[in-house]
Amino acid sequence: MQYPSRLIEKAVEEFSRLPGIGSKTALRLVLHLLKKDKSQSQALSESIQELRENIRYCEKCCNISDKNICEICANPGRDTEILCVVQDVRDVMAIENTGQYRGLYHVLGGIISPIEGISPNDLNIDSLLNRVKDDAIKEIIFALSSTMEADTTAFYISKKLKDNDIKMSSIARGIPIGGELEYADEITLARSISQRMTYRTN
Amino acid sequence: MQYPSRLIEKAVEEFSRLPGIGSKTALRLVLHLLKKDKSQSQALSESIQELRENIRYCEKCCNISDKNICEICANPGRDTEILCVVQDVRDVMAIENTGQYRGLYHVLGGIISPIEGISPNDLNIDSLLNRVKDDAIKEIIFALSSTMEADTTAFYISKKLKDNDIKMSSIARGIPIGGELEYADEITLARSISQRMTYRTN
Repeated sequence: MQYPSRLIEKAVEEFSRLPGIGSKTALRLVLHLLKKDKSQSQALSESIQELRENIRYCEKCCNISDKNICEICANPGRDTEILCVVQDVRDVMAIENTGQYRGLYHVLGGIISPIEGISPNDLNIDSLLNRVKDDAIKEIIFALSSTMEADTTAFYISKKLKDNDIKMSSIARGIPIGGELEYADEITLARSISQRMTYRTN
Repeated sequence: MQYPSRLIEKAVEEFSRLPGIGSKTALRLVLHLLKKDKSQSQALSESIQELRENIRYCEKCCNISDKNICEICANPGRDTEILCVVQDVRDVMAIENTGQYRGLYHVLGGIISPIEGISPNDLNIDSLLNRVKDDAIKEIIFALSSTMEADTTAFYISKKLKDNDIKMSSIARGIPIGGELEYADEITLARSISQRMTYRTN
């Protein structure tokens, strides 16, 4: 594709480095910005710059934050004895949106993946181990994806923690609420049967 | 959705003002930028700012350009007697990519649309009329979309130009190359029959 201007070409190139944005979509975004008021482009440009320069990570849980300690860790109303271990910031937001969990988090920043060259040292695992010791954590909930790599990561951490006297669990796997059995895959269905829940009838 | 940081919230808000980007996609883009090198965010931010500040429109054809006169208008190898009238810059790029057209362009910047409040005065029509007079244009090709508004726009311009002795035409409408008759809509098919092309057998 030949662009009518070097500035357009450069902007299209930068936009199309973002995930899910190809050169056609990038061009559409660029032409949209040109049509709209100058202030919109300026606001977008500034927010990207500020974001990258001023963002911090919570010193305790490695969540994204404006301050040294994030709002969740600083909240005195949370249960400080339970840690929910998640892969990234989006998972924290998803769990927070349920409004059901009152403990703290620990963001790993990824999962162990030899194929992608991610080793335990690349993740926030050491800080998790220190935190378990220093902060008298009593329970850890692994809220990771249901993949081989995520299972490996949970297994690796649980091994490291086996001498500490803490309860460890993983979020339940099974048929989603509203899901129909006939459309569930075999592995999920088999697992939901083997890990069936006992009815309380008392 | 609760965001862990005001900076994230601001960036998500700005990204989701772009067409086709909702708040979930915007968050994905923002977290992607945070994961990648700082230089990438900086390059994106700068390219947006430069784009909006330094872009110009060609004084002749209203195409986007780095200079006062765009590369197409400045090219001495183009046929300066034919003008192709298009709606926007993307159409110029699409036609240029065919490599088949050697004349010049005129970018209207939109089409007449009473519903959207776009009148002839909002478009680059006056400059087109002046150009036809001043530059001794002999032929105008309307390469507009196949909509009622586009037809109205072409009709409006052709009325204004009726006293000038120039040839006017519209790009051909019909079955696309590789298109199958059974899937063509009735109007296109009917038009392709009424405007059939005579075989040259000599």
